[in-house]
Amino acid sequence: MQQLVKDLLAGSRRAAARLISQVENDDPHKRELLMEIFPHTGRAYVIGITGAPGSGKSSLVDCLLQQMRSEDLKVGVIGVDPTSPFSGGAILGDRIRMQEHALDQDVFIRSMGTRGSLGGLARATREAIQVLDAFGKDIILVETVGVGQSEVDIVKTADSTMVVLTPAGGDSVQTIKAGIMEIADLFVVNKADLPGKERTVTEINLMLDMKEDSRWRPPVACTVSVRGEGIEAVWQSLQEHRRFLEESGRLQEIRRERVRRELTEQVEYLVKNQIWDRVKEQIEFDSLVEKIVHRRCDPYSAAYELLEKIDFYGETD
Amino acid sequence: MQQLVKDLLAGSRRAAARLISQVENDDPHKRELLMEIFPHTGRAYVIGITGAPGSGKSSLVDCLLQQMRSEDLKVGVIGVDPTSPFSGGAILGDRIRMQEHALDQDVFIRSMGTRGSLGGLARATREAIQVLDAFGKDIILVETVGVGQSEVDIVKTADSTMVVLTPAGGDSVQTIKAGIMEIADLFVVNKADLPGKERTVTEINLMLDMKEDSRWRPPVACTVSVRGEGIEAVWQSLQEHRRFLEESGRLQEIRRERVRRELTEQVEYLVKNQIWDRVKEQIEFDSLVEKIVHRRCDPYSAAYELLEKIDFYGETD
Repeated sequence: MQQLVKDLLAGSRRAAARLISQVENDDPHKRELLMEIFPHTGRAYVIGITGAPGSGKSSLVDCLLQQMRSEDLKVGVIGVDPTSPFSGGAILGDRIRMQEHALDQDVFIRSMGTRGSLGGLARATREAIQVLDAFGKDIILVETVGVGQSEVDIVKTADSTMVVLTPAGGDSVQTIKAGIMEIADLFVVNKADLPGKERTVTEINLMLDMKEDSRWRPPVACTVSVRGEGIEAVWQSLQEHRRFLEESGRLQEIRRERVRRELTEQVEYLVKNQIWDRVKEQIEFDSLVEKIVHRRCDPYSAAYELLEKIDFYGETD
Repeated sequence: MQQLVKDLLAGSRRAAARLISQVENDDPHKRELLMEIFPHTGRAYVIGITGAPGSGKSSLVDCLLQQMRSEDLKVGVIGVDPTSPFSGGAILGDRIRMQEHALDQDVFIRSMGTRGSLGGLARATREAIQVLDAFGKDIILVETVGVGQSEVDIVKTADSTMVVLTPAGGDSVQTIKAGIMEIADLFVVNKADLPGKERTVTEINLMLDMKEDSRWRPPVACTVSVRGEGIEAVWQSLQEHRRFLEESGRLQEIRRERVRRELTEQVEYLVKNQIWDRVKEQIEFDSLVEKIVHRRCDPYSAAYELLEKIDFYGETD
């Protein structure tokens, strides 16, 4: 495993792929692995992209990738599909145009799906970002499918977040849920050659007018990603947002907040493991379950009882 | 609060509404409240209903409600929208036809949205079910909007789960994700007057043929819920599934599994609270965050360190 990390730092794509699989599969060595790579992280800039299915996020990502590559930036792309139990190519695999990038040594593309829980997916995504960060990517694009709470959680790991809309159809501004609108640092109205573009832009601006409280007003860009139109303006807005974050000290704040969450999660993870190890040794659990099933005890009192038995509160010491 | 529980058990709708608000808002007395009502739970039968937006779940729920009321069953309806940060009427409030039930003393309707996290929504839904169970409802219908992992989590609390599809459009069988198909105890092809009904039924059956491994093969019913067609057959299938669960012992197994999960969650909840209380007293957290931000320590080692400092491992005793 240490060899794998060494290979990663030396630029091996194979090592990157294997390490991401290990974090995704919750490999027993995962924590050591993340400890090893941690000192090499913190340099990549993470851009989140979300929006309703059919809004053309994928071709937009494709265009941005080309733009970034023309400036010789090393890019990682993580496609996250919370509705899919599959991973490793499920979403991006069918993108023909992505194949041209697949041969590009400085682009790394990876898909992730839920294996089990949503919480697990958000964590695996964060860990995959760390692997690609240590791998030396300058930019990491995280694209999520859908517009639910799960996407909001995943996007929390991004430094800048783009929300993609289209002029017509069911994903108009009103139907985009409040939580999504609030995470946008940049709006992109894609498929802007369709009728209704002006109205969509106006609606977004009206909404932004109502909640003008921050130091950054998200710009609204229009693109036709299948023809590559408007991409440069999007890329410029993203760079502006990055400068804003850096100069205002917001980037430091965001990253500090992220560390707080990470440390909180790690503590709770360790605690949980330790507790269940102790419980397993003493096999009180199943008899408590039976008591609750027969309504001789409620789950809340049973939880207390269990923790007392494993001496968690230290009272019987 | 004890008065509120007394009122609930005596049949006060007002008390039911207030208690659900308390669990939803994570009231500090929530645990005591759930302890109080727990002995009065375990009698209601819970039916989960999920399916893509636009599949007509709401009018289907409406029809089922009428059917159940004609048999004098007391019914609770919980509408869950994981994409909405709002609750208390947001989803169901606009349903004109639901208003006739609103005057019916033996029907209780409630909407819930995410306030914060998805995990929180699934828990609040489970707790609302307990309130309505203690309230004396015979049947509790839990309707979820959408077809993501979040819905799967919520539906885990149901004894029988219905998945609603329509013949045409984007929610055809292929696009319904694997996780959703696997939780179905009953399929309903609604809007069955639209073209494509036969094909949809065939597709579902083909899929069921491929994974014939359980003792229950989910039946496929066709309905036109706006005209009330096919509802009786759905209701009969639901009752058959309930009988199957009861006679095969599966219902006991399902409910035991649910108790295991509940007890696990309660234990972890208590442990977390205790840990963070101890951490707060000793204020190590922020200095560790700074160390990590400056890459002088990784979050994994920091978590260990923190737990050692609060004497979690008991080594310094």
